[in-house]
Amino acid sequence: MRKVDEIRALFPILDRKVEGKDLVYFDNAATSQRPRSVLDLQQELCSRSNANIHRAVHTLSMEATEAYEKGRDAVRDFLGAESREEIILTSGTTASINLVAHCFAAAGFLKNGDKVLLSAAEHHSNIVPWQIACQATGAGLKVLEVEPDGTIDLQKFSDSLTDDVKMVAVAHVSNILGVVNPVKQMVAVAHSKGIPVLVDGAQGVTHLKVDVTDIDCDFYAFSGHKIYAPTGIGVLYGKKEWLEKLPPYMGGGDMVESVSFEKTVYADLPLKFEAGTANYVAAACLRPALEIAGELASDAAVATHEKELMAAMESALGSINGVKVAGIDAPERIPLYSFTIEGVHPLDAAMLIDKMGVALRSGHMCAEPIVRRLTGGSSMLRASLMPYNTVGEVEVFARALARVVIMLRQ
Amino acid sequence: MRKVDEIRALFPILDRKVEGKDLVYFDNAATSQRPRSVLDLQQELCSRSNANIHRAVHTLSMEATEAYEKGRDAVRDFLGAESREEIILTSGTTASINLVAHCFAAAGFLKNGDKVLLSAAEHHSNIVPWQIACQATGAGLKVLEVEPDGTIDLQKFSDSLTDDVKMVAVAHVSNILGVVNPVKQMVAVAHSKGIPVLVDGAQGVTHLKVDVTDIDCDFYAFSGHKIYAPTGIGVLYGKKEWLEKLPPYMGGGDMVESVSFEKTVYADLPLKFEAGTANYVAAACLRPALEIAGELASDAAVATHEKELMAAMESALGSINGVKVAGIDAPERIPLYSFTIEGVHPLDAAMLIDKMGVALRSGHMCAEPIVRRLTGGSSMLRASLMPYNTVGEVEVFARALARVVIMLRQ
Repeated sequence: MRKVDEIRALFPILDRKVEGKDLVYFDNAATSQRPRSVLDLQQELCSRSNANIHRAVHTLSMEATEAYEKGRDAVRDFLGAESREEIILTSGTTASINLVAHCFAAAGFLKNGDKVLLSAAEHHSNIVPWQIACQATGAGLKVLEVEPDGTIDLQKFSDSLTDDVKMVAVAHVSNILGVVNPVKQMVAVAHSKGIPVLVDGAQGVTHLKVDVTDIDCDFYAFSGHKIYAPTGIGVLYGKKEWLEKLPPYMGGGDMVESVSFEKTVYADLPLKFEAGTANYVAAACLRPALEIAGELASDAAVATHEKELMAAMESALGSINGVKVAGIDAPERIPLYSFTIEGVHPLDAAMLIDKMGVALRSGHMCAEPIVRRLTGGSSMLRASLMPYNTVGEVEVFARALARVVIMLRQ
Repeated sequence: MRKVDEIRALFPILDRKVEGKDLVYFDNAATSQRPRSVLDLQQELCSRSNANIHRAVHTLSMEATEAYEKGRDAVRDFLGAESREEIILTSGTTASINLVAHCFAAAGFLKNGDKVLLSAAEHHSNIVPWQIACQATGAGLKVLEVEPDGTIDLQKFSDSLTDDVKMVAVAHVSNILGVVNPVKQMVAVAHSKGIPVLVDGAQGVTHLKVDVTDIDCDFYAFSGHKIYAPTGIGVLYGKKEWLEKLPPYMGGGDMVESVSFEKTVYADLPLKFEAGTANYVAAACLRPALEIAGELASDAAVATHEKELMAAMESALGSINGVKVAGIDAPERIPLYSFTIEGVHPLDAAMLIDKMGVALRSGHMCAEPIVRRLTGGSSMLRASLMPYNTVGEVEVFARALARVVIMLRQ
């Protein structure tokens, strides 16, 4: 059995038909699919060990708590974090970044006149939380433009780190460009000037082997649903020294040591940032999800397969006249392709190609600033692949896209 | 078939054994169990229609979006809200209340010297968010004590609404007392003085027929997982006029109309408050969950069954020497019993009774202030029942508790 067939066999949804055709799911950067091990654990917890965690001593609650904390351990191992206290479980990347932006400002680390440095290619979830924090404090955003090939120039980055910059927030991989940013080098430069760095890893964890201790970033955020786990669970890695300096984000159960109307004492890390009933089912499912992700990331055959997928995609997109792919010339990228087709509206193309069984994303993909910079408009098409995709699917996509262009081009 | 057997047949987990005994699950106020319809929909969405919502036109995404929005419609119907724009989907009650507390303060409705009125019996999730909001603004909490029988005195409530009170936040049903608060009358009194009211409905939705239009509250919050739906999903009902006056809470995708580094325009309701990838699977599962809840709430046979359960519980607890049950004399209550046993530590009792298959909660149940007021200490036992519990289970509980008392009493 070929490697990719083995991988596909883990994901029940890949057998699905759409409009009578085999589904070609190329919208993985929006959400990945769930392997059977995740579906089974989700179902088992819900139907055998379902109880609220941390707060009871009965059997079901202890089983659920153990599953939850094993999820946290799996995240720590996956990210190479030094301690489990540095792993905060949230509802998603967006919640993780909002937590940092809000608490960083609330702690007084962001003041009137200060700047937060973002790249021009950030997702809305790494822009808007900082805008809100800036509105609350009188700080402002500073934008580092990306090079024509989609990369970040380290010298320009260094030059942009003026004294007023108090935080750098940057994607590990842009969800539009697919280009891997040199986050380790960026962190070294920022730290040499005493500036902390948050890395938005939503697209980074799915294709790269991530080691937060090696990167040395201060915060790293990602979502479970983009890496084989259920929706409604996310991760915030934070260096202990930072997490201890920040005030809590939400208030509620589980994040307190003791509560009175006069004085509330917050819990230690990591619970200080985990108010309310945790999504323990989804958190527990991070373990089988990250097991698969870790195995795929360290399998040479998968790396070869991904290279073949990328070569096939580049050839497919290159063969169609008038196609322009963002970040295609960057030296290091993931199998994620945002593109425009001359004379074809992205929305029309996405709707039409869906009738041929191919799932693409269209629009601004929640990263309107970079889409506007690249296209002058607010819409592109995007095909994003995971290791369970095949070269055969790329061929189906290529033929379908060629038909779409013929049908739609004015 | 008896009514309760029909209901039990919907919930696979109820067949479970613990320590070789039939599970008696009396920890429902912490989390309820999931019916098969919810488990099936969860599995179907994850394995057939799994895609990110709202932002794509391909088939899977449209199916997922439709399921998500049907979840919202089910909530609107369940709560009797006037419009679907008033239904915000969050990650849980805690997130819902934090949203209101934060945004109410950020909008300037809470200023230095102002007060937020809480009852003395609130859950931490309806205390700590307000403490954080008060710390940010210089406002403070004002606490309305409950009567010896656990009820709220409307005259005292009215008297407590001095000019400095800008918000009332009160549980529909306290998770310790089990007593139904007269929220409709409280809202009328508060509104006569121009003060908005947030109702924490986490324990209210599970046993009462809730109509937010009739109650006329300004905000109503609850969690899916306490009412048959999965973890990681919650609801905030807010009157449109209030939701429009509040700034967004988290920033990110889906909550924006357009984003640039200079100016971001927020989306209309309800999306303005729904940043990031929604937990669409859990949200969709609100529909079958609330269908069951709605059917049970309007079934006279279920009402009779709940009365029998309550009579049996009261008789069981009354038969043990030295048991003191909070709020037991209140005229209107739900089948939720927090109690102490003279000479027996709650934690020891909970651990020992678990060996007999009975799941009780022990500790402060995330409502430390009222537990301290009631007991002088920080720990009680709690048994909380749902319509799927039986009088037979109450008998098992009663025998087990009697044995526990004999074994542990000093």
